[in-house]
Amino acid sequence: MTKHLQLNEQGKLKHFLSIEGLSRELLTEILDTAESFAGMSEHQVKKVPLLRGKTIVNLFFENSTRTRATFELAAARLSADVMNMNIATSSTAKGESLLDTIHNLEAMHVDMFVVRHALSGAAHFIAQHVAPHISVINAGDGQHAHPTQAMLDMYTIRQYKQRFEGLKVAIVGDILHSRVARSQIVALNTLGVAEVRVIAPKTLLPAQVASMGVVAVHDMDEGLDDVDVVIMLRLQKERMNSAFLPSESEFFRCFGLTEARLQRAKPDAVVMHPGPINRGVEIASSVADGPQSVILQQVSNGISVRMAIMSMTMSGQGGTA
Amino acid sequence: MTKHLQLNEQGKLKHFLSIEGLSRELLTEILDTAESFAGMSEHQVKKVPLLRGKTIVNLFFENSTRTRATFELAAARLSADVMNMNIATSSTAKGESLLDTIHNLEAMHVDMFVVRHALSGAAHFIAQHVAPHISVINAGDGQHAHPTQAMLDMYTIRQYKQRFEGLKVAIVGDILHSRVARSQIVALNTLGVAEVRVIAPKTLLPAQVASMGVVAVHDMDEGLDDVDVVIMLRLQKERMNSAFLPSESEFFRCFGLTEARLQRAKPDAVVMHPGPINRGVEIASSVADGPQSVILQQVSNGISVRMAIMSMTMSGQGGTA
Amino acid sequence: MTKHLQLNEQGKLKHFLSIEGLSRELLTEILDTAESFAGMSEHQVKKVPLLRGKTIVNLFFENSTRTRATFELAAARLSADVMNMNIATSSTAKGESLLDTIHNLEAMHVDMFVVRHALSGAAHFIAQHVAPHISVINAGDGQHAHPTQAMLDMYTIRQYKQRFEGLKVAIVGDILHSRVARSQIVALNTLGVAEVRVIAPKTLLPAQVASMGVVAVHDMDEGLDDVDVVIMLRLQKERMNSAFLPSESEFFRCFGLTEARLQRAKPDAVVMHPGPINRGVEIASSVADGPQSVILQQVSNGISVRMAIMSMTMSGQGGTA
Repeated sequence: MTKHLQLNEQGKLKHFLSIEGLSRELLTEILDTAESFAGMSEHQVKKVPLLRGKTIVNLFFENSTRTRATFELAAARLSADVMNMNIATSSTAKGESLLDTIHNLEAMHVDMFVVRHALSGAAHFIAQHVAPHISVINAGDGQHAHPTQAMLDMYTIRQYKQRFEGLKVAIVGDILHSRVARSQIVALNTLGVAEVRVIAPKTLLPAQVASMGVVAVHDMDEGLDDVDVVIMLRLQKERMNSAFLPSESEFFRCFGLTEARLQRAKPDAVVMHPGPINRGVEIASSVADGPQSVILQQVSNGISVRMAIMSMTMSGQGGTA
Repeated sequence: MTKHLQLNEQGKLKHFLSIEGLSRELLTEILDTAESFAGMSEHQVKKVPLLRGKTIVNLFFENSTRTRATFELAAARLSADVMNMNIATSSTAKGESLLDTIHNLEAMHVDMFVVRHALSGAAHFIAQHVAPHISVINAGDGQHAHPTQAMLDMYTIRQYKQRFEGLKVAIVGDILHSRVARSQIVALNTLGVAEVRVIAPKTLLPAQVASMGVVAVHDMDEGLDDVDVVIMLRLQKERMNSAFLPSESEFFRCFGLTEARLQRAKPDAVVMHPGPINRGVEIASSVADGPQSVILQQVSNGISVRMAIMSMTMSGQGGTA
Repeated sequence: MTKHLQLNEQGKLKHFLSIEGLSRELLTEILDTAESFAGMSEHQVKKVPLLRGKTIVNLFFENSTRTRATFELAAARLSADVMNMNIATSSTAKGESLLDTIHNLEAMHVDMFVVRHALSGAAHFIAQHVAPHISVINAGDGQHAHPTQAMLDMYTIRQYKQRFEGLKVAIVGDILHSRVARSQIVALNTLGVAEVRVIAPKTLLPAQVASMGVVAVHDMDEGLDDVDVVIMLRLQKERMNSAFLPSESEFFRCFGLTEARLQRAKPDAVVMHPGPINRGVEIASSVADGPQSVILQQVSNGISVRMAIMSMTMSGQGGTA
């Protein structure tokens, strides 16, 4: 169902809601398209007129400076008009339902919703109810998915490793509360890595971990052994029930990424993090700023990848074809 | 005086502050101009360069997501630059007077103020004090007027009824606190409908209702009899003094628009509402989403009508002529 | 050190952080460049494509409607894309450090930061750590500097007096807490005025006043004697320790600029104020709105001067050359 919702009859991307249901070919097409934009956004930034005259609404029900900024910049570089709507402080305060808000915005002939919401499934719900000419992009919904983040991570891995085949990728930390991890795991498996390893205490792993296509490891040193990519997750302190969780210093002692621990990984392993970083909680500053860190490159890649997804969904709507 | 304030020496629109003082010909010109923009904003949205290089300031002293969004989109489609100023959180906090704020903004060579203010007369006051090259558009002032909303309603009526002559239009609900109703009544009478009927309990009618050119009816079923257009108003709960007012359920029982009640109107009557809707308070969901509802079409028309008013006032300033 | 930080190897402006370390020739080049933009922003506003495709981030850690607006308008008229970031309500709330925020933004390939911060030295700090292709403009840091305000004041003085040589300029009021005054004093001395006079009670003068290249006067009438320019400062009530300070009415009695007092200045003296004005506290309304006031002209000049500084720093980065 997610598959049909995301693709049009020709199998082209129409919405971008989650990695689930998207083929390896389509994910690769996104990465290739992003690569074609990456050159332009390096130093000599120029705009492309692909979405000129299109209106993109940043529909943020949850605050996120960084993600909003990357979508705003990506849209500007595609020459689209962007309207930021912080819905927490808007008509919903007057008792208007989400669906009424959506229908009102679509009546204004906008072309795309970039949706951030604290509830899992919000972007899917909107995609199911939106007018046929509108694309919906999930910019993070609850603990469910954050597929554009996952795709920029895939882009970064391919950039440094030139392939997915044979790679061992470790995802470390709060898997339980991480929409990023969920999307990464599906993307990595779809793109054909050799092994996805999740490293976390049992209290930070979801119950269904056995069916997620990952190897679960509870010891950090063991887990990092021989991996090509280490993806650290942000400790979502605000989402955790403290009774079941270790203190920050205890977490760092057991699962924090230090220079010593990173030695267990392959010598050319890269270190990734979706940001913002809790220095000294999940990652040592010396690693975050060290030679194997590609964390800021991830941020740069976020622009190209979002440009790719925006232009592909819009073209899947028949809008620019 | 309003007339002279709104028109230039050639009788062209210079500011748009209220419907009062504007001729039937001018209102019709607005509707015709909006119609010329409506085609472009249907599906294949393109921008027109009418206001390229112009700077429009959304000067909102009162929060309104929807109205701000329609003005922002209308301005973008006219290729203007838009600057949003939420004045509640700005220099006025440092004790700067409204007039100093206005004079500062006009010193920055902006071209238009779109003003939303909780005080009646705020837009007129600004228009009286603003530099001659600046246009002021009233986006709602206190309980006084909301003329762009009234004009998009007129546009919607003409779209569905092809004429104003002979029409019976009912406006239902909280007339007393409604700036929308005030502007609608003047517009409908100027455009020559046969009858404007206001349907409300006595506590929600203004004292001067006898002089407003309307027929006041206190019974909903009687009021809807044989009308061509039903305009429901939002119950402005936050503006009412509860001692004199019915509960929500009581209001719905007496004045809520249900499918059964709508039978009293002409079979091809259309149902309008300025939004946001209180479902189950002033209107049943089945009517709001039903076949006679043109509520979302009103929202769409809001873009074209605001594009028309913005481009006409700017041209009345001699800026783009 | 500030000098090297602000200039590139060819001696061109690269960042604009403070007036200190900039030569008379460079300040004059800024004024001349601003003059070339002033014509276009008079009545028939048009955009120039100097910064097309460039992304400017308004990085405001401190609220300022007016300054943000002038930078936003200046950027729009240079055809740049502007992204407003109110950092008080952003990632820093999640514990991200200032430097991480900056590095993340620069990873998004932005071209310029316009920085407003409550801490002195914030803009310098950012300029020291930012990637080489990014320009930083100080839009006010703590009590340290507000150099774009000082340059628009210099522009206004040159506009009305055609020269700096021989001029006597009085700066009146809260010198102690004023970043504007600090920047003005350096600019006036660099540009070669005959005398900079500061008029204030001892409690509102900095300890190091003797080394600032000014004549300190504690009596208002004496201080205004024969000056060509009177610059009034805003009384920064929120920054003052009330124990050492006079009441508002007492301040106005001693240091408020009235029509009577202004008689002491040269007959063609101009009155300036950075705004927003406290009417009746530091300046009488009759003077603020009177024939010698050029306060609103300062606001207009702010656009041209900021356009000049933005385009010069960007060209100093080799970005547009």
